[in-house]
Amino acid sequence: MRMVDIITKKRDGHELTDKEIEFFVKGYVDGKIPDYQVSALLMAILFRGMTDHEIVTLTDLMEHSGDVMDLSSVKGVTVDKHSTGGVGDKTSLALGPMVAACGASLAKMSGRGLGHTGGTLDKLESIPGLNVFVSEEHFIKQVNDIGIAIVGQTGTLVPADKKLYALRDVTGTVESTPLIASSVMSKKLASGSHCILIDVKFGNGAFMKDIESARHLAKIMCRIGNALGRDTRAVLTDMEQPLGFAVGNSLEVKEAIDTLHGKGPKDFTDLCFRSGAIMLEQAKLASNEEEAYKMLKKVIEDGSAFNKFREMVIAQGGDVSYIDHPEKFEVAKNIIEIRANKSGYIRQIVALRIGENAMRLGAGRETFDDVIDMSAGIVLAKKVGDKVEAGDLLCTAYTNKEDYAEVIQDIKESFVIIDEPVVVPPTVHDYIR
Amino acid sequence: MRMVDIITKKRDGHELTDKEIEFFVKGYVDGKIPDYQVSALLMAILFRGMTDHEIVTLTDLMEHSGDVMDLSSVKGVTVDKHSTGGVGDKTSLALGPMVAACGASLAKMSGRGLGHTGGTLDKLESIPGLNVFVSEEHFIKQVNDIGIAIVGQTGTLVPADKKLYALRDVTGTVESTPLIASSVMSKKLASGSHCILIDVKFGNGAFMKDIESARHLAKIMCRIGNALGRDTRAVLTDMEQPLGFAVGNSLEVKEAIDTLHGKGPKDFTDLCFRSGAIMLEQAKLASNEEEAYKMLKKVIEDGSAFNKFREMVIAQGGDVSYIDHPEKFEVAKNIIEIRANKSGYIRQIVALRIGENAMRLGAGRETFDDVIDMSAGIVLAKKVGDKVEAGDLLCTAYTNKEDYAEVIQDIKESFVIIDEPVVVPPTVHDYIR
Repeated sequence: MRMVDIITKKRDGHELTDKEIEFFVKGYVDGKIPDYQVSALLMAILFRGMTDHEIVTLTDLMEHSGDVMDLSSVKGVTVDKHSTGGVGDKTSLALGPMVAACGASLAKMSGRGLGHTGGTLDKLESIPGLNVFVSEEHFIKQVNDIGIAIVGQTGTLVPADKKLYALRDVTGTVESTPLIASSVMSKKLASGSHCILIDVKFGNGAFMKDIESARHLAKIMCRIGNALGRDTRAVLTDMEQPLGFAVGNSLEVKEAIDTLHGKGPKDFTDLCFRSGAIMLEQAKLASNEEEAYKMLKKVIEDGSAFNKFREMVIAQGGDVSYIDHPEKFEVAKNIIEIRANKSGYIRQIVALRIGENAMRLGAGRETFDDVIDMSAGIVLAKKVGDKVEAGDLLCTAYTNKEDYAEVIQDIKESFVIIDEPVVVPPTVHDYIR
Repeated sequence: MRMVDIITKKRDGHELTDKEIEFFVKGYVDGKIPDYQVSALLMAILFRGMTDHEIVTLTDLMEHSGDVMDLSSVKGVTVDKHSTGGVGDKTSLALGPMVAACGASLAKMSGRGLGHTGGTLDKLESIPGLNVFVSEEHFIKQVNDIGIAIVGQTGTLVPADKKLYALRDVTGTVESTPLIASSVMSKKLASGSHCILIDVKFGNGAFMKDIESARHLAKIMCRIGNALGRDTRAVLTDMEQPLGFAVGNSLEVKEAIDTLHGKGPKDFTDLCFRSGAIMLEQAKLASNEEEAYKMLKKVIEDGSAFNKFREMVIAQGGDVSYIDHPEKFEVAKNIIEIRANKSGYIRQIVALRIGENAMRLGAGRETFDDVIDMSAGIVLAKKVGDKVEAGDLLCTAYTNKEDYAEVIQDIKESFVIIDEPVVVPPTVHDYIR
């Protein structure tokens, strides 16, 4: 078997056999097939796509390219969730403790962020002392003890994806639905949970720009997960405007705490309840969504969801006084209020621009070497649909940088205000099971 | 400027700017852009194509990526020809001396072959003593003295093509019309002649399988050449059956000599006359094709074309006694006659199979390390359209190998014999100016 023949076959639109996919994945991980042949194949896949069978085979091989987490010693049903990423997406921080408080076991491995803001790990690390890199023993014991752990990936999990993703990133081959689906799903499968919920975001602030491509990706991911023996479902959620109010690491942690106290933004709270209800159904802890909603409402109201978050912070060495007194989080030196020029209704808050500007204020990394300013970011005062008067506060920017004038102007332009009332879109547009 | 953005732009179907193409070509030749990014771009080009402007820019940059031949000290109009390659294609060996005898200056740099049989250089090297690697001074002096030289490329000509072609070969990106056109034309342009004739072959034995793709390639190559200041024309010629009778290095040299004596195969002679007439018109040595035909007929009849070939062999150190007495060429140990099973008319002689089997007999290289057996090959006794009786000789195979039984059977199956008379297709199907 020759790699060039595999490239040519895919280039010409034919389905690769299991053996051919295995030849390429194993050969690449073993260093026998060079980057330049793999990048050509990836580009051919981007143009030609893959059949369901090819995608399942690829994902299965990627999942087993390294270690897989053995969660068999974890009590009860393990659940995991993944978001394809958006602006202000702090969902795991609130949703995780909510479902754990209801009795699910959330054994989640997460990543860092490159782009708008940090990833879940970065956000957690804004809590002083909190350690996201714990041993496998610690990880499993923590999940058994308190029902939740959110930690960094171990180095030997899914090496094929690590290598392939780094190559895709520099060869214009990120934007391929089969490659996105196999990358996400191989990691989720290797992480070992019984049930997986995928939050596929769409809109200008997300990877998928429209609902149809999001639906297509979600369906493929569900088919992969179910074909490989996990209960996998997906929600399609809006990312035209930032999720919630806060964009930026410690700012988002504070918003997650508010939400666990029942005082979070409506859209973010809605997303946590809907996702949580599905996960509880998946874990067979609730027989339907209505029952699951009631369970989630209860753990918010009785404080047990918030307490679960506290327990997790303590278990991972974080200073819990910051969770009890979020006003302790360091506040950026420069706080800039951005106000409306005109009266009307908020038609749009361009999520992508808000995200990019949060990054410019210090909240994100452009390269892996950049250091995140945990206190930097943007907190919205208004959301799409809100009525504003000229002079009303639209949002507040936080930064320790001094050359922020241009960024502030750009943030202001991210708000589109029109004269007519605006219908507020739902946060969760669809549910794929 | 970042290479990943250039890849993405082409992937999404947009036209690259001159600066972007320059960034990629220069960066690649300088080793600043890695193979894996270039192969992804090449695959994107294969799917998306290139505009005429992009192709001209790419070719121009490739031409000037290394040294270019300065033929300004050569007297008269310099002409060059290139064939996209076929089975039994010894055209340069007869056509070159014919046009040189008519007063054109043929300063040709040629290549070796990988595949069916050797390239023009290999065929020339079957003449004992003949040296295809001469100094630039020798090359120019020889063209000035006798009007013809066919030599190997110097190492520093078109390094961009050398690097790109090696990468295309292993990444499934050979079969892209813009990349084929820019590769061929950059080398022809760097070789420095005023006029260029491209012989684009089509059919099962050629790179282009049908006349429409051949026409498309030919038109692009003509546009490139003319845009960059050379009189560039093309002929579209048949490669469904081998060209002439002989396939194999010294066998083809002998056939070229026959042709220069006016005793060559009809299809091959037709091709040399038609191509030669066009080249003489390009060089303004004839005012129309009719006049050019008469000139070519004369140099065959008066022996001056043959004499031109003799002069070239002498000038490059070859043993001219082989040219005067072709029976001196070493003959392979095993000579196998292949005869018809049935009577009828030859419908097809599958060029690709004849070529591949000639290679198996020893006439070609599968890898660059293989050594060619100059005496190996196949000589047809019949051509498409010929009437045969059962038992008639179809062709003769020559080899020094012993395990040829399977090859012989396969050669036999390359001849398709039917009951009905067959119309003989023309050799030159079209002329693009």
